[in-house]
Amino acid sequence: MTVSLADLNQMTLPAFAAAVGDTFELAPWVAEAAHAKRPFASVTALHLAMMAAVRQASHATQVAFLGKHPDLAGKAARAGAVTEESRHEQASVGLDTLSEEEFARFHRLNDAYTAKFGFPFIVCVRRHTRDSILQQFERRLPNDEAQEFATAVQEVFYITRLRIAAKVTGEGVPQVDGRLSTHVLDTHAGRPAPGVAIELYEFAGGRAQRIGSTVTNADGRTDQPLIAGRPLPNGRYELQFAVGDHFRSRGIAAAEPAFHDIVPLRFSIAEPEGHYHVPLLCTPWSYSTYRGS
Amino acid sequence: MTVSLADLNQMTLPAFAAAVGDTFELAPWVAEAAHAKRPFASVTALHLAMMAAVRQASHATQVAFLGKHPDLAGKAARAGAVTEESRHEQASVGLDTLSEEEFARFHRLNDAYTAKFGFPFIVCVRRHTRDSILQQFERRLPNDEAQEFATAVQEVFYITRLRIAAKVTGEGVPQVDGRLSTHVLDTHAGRPAPGVAIELYEFAGGRAQRIGSTVTNADGRTDQPLIAGRPLPNGRYELQFAVGDHFRSRGIAAAEPAFHDIVPLRFSIAEPEGHYHVPLLCTPWSYSTYRGS
Amino acid sequence: MTVSLADLNQMTLPAFAAAVGDTFELAPWVAEAAHAKRPFASVTALHLAMMAAVRQASHATQVAFLGKHPDLAGKAARAGAVTEESRHEQASVGLDTLSEEEFARFHRLNDAYTAKFGFPFIVCVRRHTRDSILQQFERRLPNDEAQEFATAVQEVFYITRLRIAAKVTGEGVPQVDGRLSTHVLDTHAGRPAPGVAIELYEFAGGRAQRIGSTVTNADGRTDQPLIAGRPLPNGRYELQFAVGDHFRSRGIAAAEPAFHDIVPLRFSIAEPEGHYHVPLLCTPWSYSTYRGS
Amino acid sequence: MTVSLADLNQMTLPAFAAAVGDTFELAPWVAEAAHAKRPFASVTALHLAMMAAVRQASHATQVAFLGKHPDLAGKAARAGAVTEESRHEQASVGLDTLSEEEFARFHRLNDAYTAKFGFPFIVCVRRHTRDSILQQFERRLPNDEAQEFATAVQEVFYITRLRIAAKVTGEGVPQVDGRLSTHVLDTHAGRPAPGVAIELYEFAGGRAQRIGSTVTNADGRTDQPLIAGRPLPNGRYELQFAVGDHFRSRGIAAAEPAFHDIVPLRFSIAEPEGHYHVPLLCTPWSYSTYRGS
Repeated sequence: MTVSLADLNQMTLPAFAAAVGDTFELAPWVAEAAHAKRPFASVTALHLAMMAAVRQASHATQVAFLGKHPDLAGKAARAGAVTEESRHEQASVGLDTLSEEEFARFHRLNDAYTAKFGFPFIVCVRRHTRDSILQQFERRLPNDEAQEFATAVQEVFYITRLRIAAKVTGEGVPQVDGRLSTHVLDTHAGRPAPGVAIELYEFAGGRAQRIGSTVTNADGRTDQPLIAGRPLPNGRYELQFAVGDHFRSRGIAAAEPAFHDIVPLRFSIAEPEGHYHVPLLCTPWSYSTYRGS
Repeated sequence: MTVSLADLNQMTLPAFAAAVGDTFELAPWVAEAAHAKRPFASVTALHLAMMAAVRQASHATQVAFLGKHPDLAGKAARAGAVTEESRHEQASVGLDTLSEEEFARFHRLNDAYTAKFGFPFIVCVRRHTRDSILQQFERRLPNDEAQEFATAVQEVFYITRLRIAAKVTGEGVPQVDGRLSTHVLDTHAGRPAPGVAIELYEFAGGRAQRIGSTVTNADGRTDQPLIAGRPLPNGRYELQFAVGDHFRSRGIAAAEPAFHDIVPLRFSIAEPEGHYHVPLLCTPWSYSTYRGS
Repeated sequence: MTVSLADLNQMTLPAFAAAVGDTFELAPWVAEAAHAKRPFASVTALHLAMMAAVRQASHATQVAFLGKHPDLAGKAARAGAVTEESRHEQASVGLDTLSEEEFARFHRLNDAYTAKFGFPFIVCVRRHTRDSILQQFERRLPNDEAQEFATAVQEVFYITRLRIAAKVTGEGVPQVDGRLSTHVLDTHAGRPAPGVAIELYEFAGGRAQRIGSTVTNADGRTDQPLIAGRPLPNGRYELQFAVGDHFRSRGIAAAEPAFHDIVPLRFSIAEPEGHYHVPLLCTPWSYSTYRGS
Repeated sequence: MTVSLADLNQMTLPAFAAAVGDTFELAPWVAEAAHAKRPFASVTALHLAMMAAVRQASHATQVAFLGKHPDLAGKAARAGAVTEESRHEQASVGLDTLSEEEFARFHRLNDAYTAKFGFPFIVCVRRHTRDSILQQFERRLPNDEAQEFATAVQEVFYITRLRIAAKVTGEGVPQVDGRLSTHVLDTHAGRPAPGVAIELYEFAGGRAQRIGSTVTNADGRTDQPLIAGRPLPNGRYELQFAVGDHFRSRGIAAAEPAFHDIVPLRFSIAEPEGHYHVPLLCTPWSYSTYRGS
């Protein structure tokens, strides 16, 4: 259910609150404060006004607000006592299907975090893989309170920016999507390599899990980006290209087995809203890659 | 126990047979025939004389000779009824530690092979990985008898060439060893990359098994080749280079996580006696490799 | 003065001839034959109909037609007795400003050619550099008559296709333009390199002549292709990139003088209607290029 | 005429002075001071002892010593009133064959330099090309006196280190030679490229002058380094590789003309005593280079 910025700019407070009130986890006062600032010239301006309400609240209010966020992978999510958005976001990264052991580990980290800071660990899960969420936990737990308070608010910024961008249409929707693309050049032939099978893996717990597969088109690119229309989850990835099949299909019998058969390109994503272009230049006997544009 | 070519050239038949008679599996007549051709100008000439005896024998003798080779991973090897060389060679590739399931699979393939050709499947295991032996089985089983007979004799050539090269010292020892080497160039700094941790994996049954690890020296090379002093086993490999640690040690904080952290270079070996030089040129944002020299 | 295909399809013969009659050098019968085939579904179809008239004419008519083409760089061009199109095309490649010595050389080659084949040397100059025209002369002079007749007609095809594409608007204009583009990636920084000065040289008579210069934009590309809107002249080229200035502007003092300061990429163009993408990947200590897409 | 360190360590002062006295331009007191420090454990120690004498002399003595160095390309060199070493060194870089105009330019710069600092411009010409000497002049002229005094003494260090290394044999001869090498890998074939013609150019006055040519051997390297047995002159260079001929010889007809025919690699040398390895990896459609080791 989306709503247009133009309509929002006209709404009474109850309608406005009904439309965007659950953007900020159990904090109707955020929408109230934003409502007073109408009209907004852009969706980004609406989001910044809501964030301004958070940043200008008293420390006690802020801590109470942070405290209402659900435990990541916690009991609340299991029992359903969270907003629909929270539940959906946590499922997207696999936090709803943790093993008992993983659940226990998350729970233990979260308890330590909550005990230290007085509010639960908050992270924008859509910008992360399971591995990088765990790394965030380990990295952020030693922070001092001021650092961590700022980090938690910044994560609220990311979480709510995504919610607003998904819900409100109109001018100036914030840029929340990244893009992962590739291109296969056959520098033995001096041409793009068509028909090359590509698999995309994400590293999770030391293991590579296949999260997608595609084939290059006539220009050596893929018809659709490998990942698009969402933030690129921070994490480690590997692209695997079946270049041996490509060269065999060109009738080039380099050796048996082929020197390069499946070429893996391993890389990490650290800018979820960025464009990662990871091309492959290859011959039967060499290959190279680089972060392109 | 090695013996010099000079000594062999002087030996009586019994001494000669005792020294090199077990090179050819349960075929003392091969050494006898070779003994008559003394003296040999090179170790290679000795080996070729022995092979000539095999090639000039009657077909019945040849088939009987091939038939005396032990089943690969077979009952004979388990019961100890093979030459010491055979047992050692089969152990080197892990054929002595097959699971029951793998043992059954090898056994089944070998039975089909023996039923079809009248002699067991012969392959120079020192030139192969477990994976490539299995591929050989699958590739060779459909051969016709003439092709497969020629292939079996060629494998005897490889097996016995290794045995002779290990046993006989002197002039003209045949070249039986390959070499796998690498070199890490940091093209961000324009210098070799020292201290880079490298791991070498062999693919076996779809899984990568670590078979070695090392660290680059001041020239970006390794003090010892990654594999040397033996044939390079035909198979699929992956080198993994910890370039993220290298750049972090240079104080270059490219991103978090680093775009390239562990760089995998995947390649196959098809020439066991060849030199494979697999260098890595890298920056924090790009890398390339090629078959060098 | 352009004319639309729709209008041509409606025209009487005199109007049609006035509009496109001089496309084929002094051969009004070509337009006449084409006029009878109206209407045309595409500009390409119009051109092919005109070429069909040439190809279906008697050999004597064809030879007479070829014979009416001006000597390349010949007396006719100097005296003005050629079509405006011919004069303009020959000027575009510098044939109107030959030195006396070059003029004599062209004249000598052309006399030998005409003596051998009975018609002057015909080449679509817009698809060539001065150097490649001279190479064409040397390569084609030893041809036999059948080969050369076919080559001359093919060149008439190229010449007239360009004239038709320039003159007639509408559906299905033939693709006559090529494109030369570049892209500078700084793989030291993992980003496109903006602000890099680029010069383009054409080799003529063993010397490199600068024919253009530009600067990369924020994406490391150039706002306009290096060559576009015309066939890419067959010939040898060099791009020179001021990468030393780029790295100095980033504060990277690699050495004095910089290991790579001006990077030259030398390449040839053999497909005038093709897309040549010639990118540069560079660090202060390395660079690479490839034919991209 | 060389002399051994062992002999020098035994010599009386007159013999010692006769043997190495002219190492330091018209400064017999340097050899005298060094003679008192015998014996030397290494040739480097001998040279450092001589330099210590220079560094410990009074400022007036030092300035007088620097003042006795000949004008670079000056009248003295023409008239023969300099040491044989000086004359030979200046000839090696072409300073004895300057045009009248170049002679005038050098003379003018040298007059300005001498007027400002009270001693002539001193540079170790063996470590430079003509172009870089001119650049040194322009760069050093604005220096203040202390900077320039230190620079002049450092150049004396380089000049005399070369003289000592050429004259004295024995233990610990200082490392004064650099090395320029290359390697051509054909990554289309996965092999070194043999028989590739290579030309080496030095940029002088904006023009590239050919200073050497060679051909790759079976390993894709050159039998001799491109430059060795001397310091590498600081300057700008270009290697040109005839890769088009190489691929044509392999029967690969990529296009006409070949996309890459002559590949130029342009680079600068800034460390005269360094090893510059400048390899070429190429296919008919791509190439790359890097500073190797």
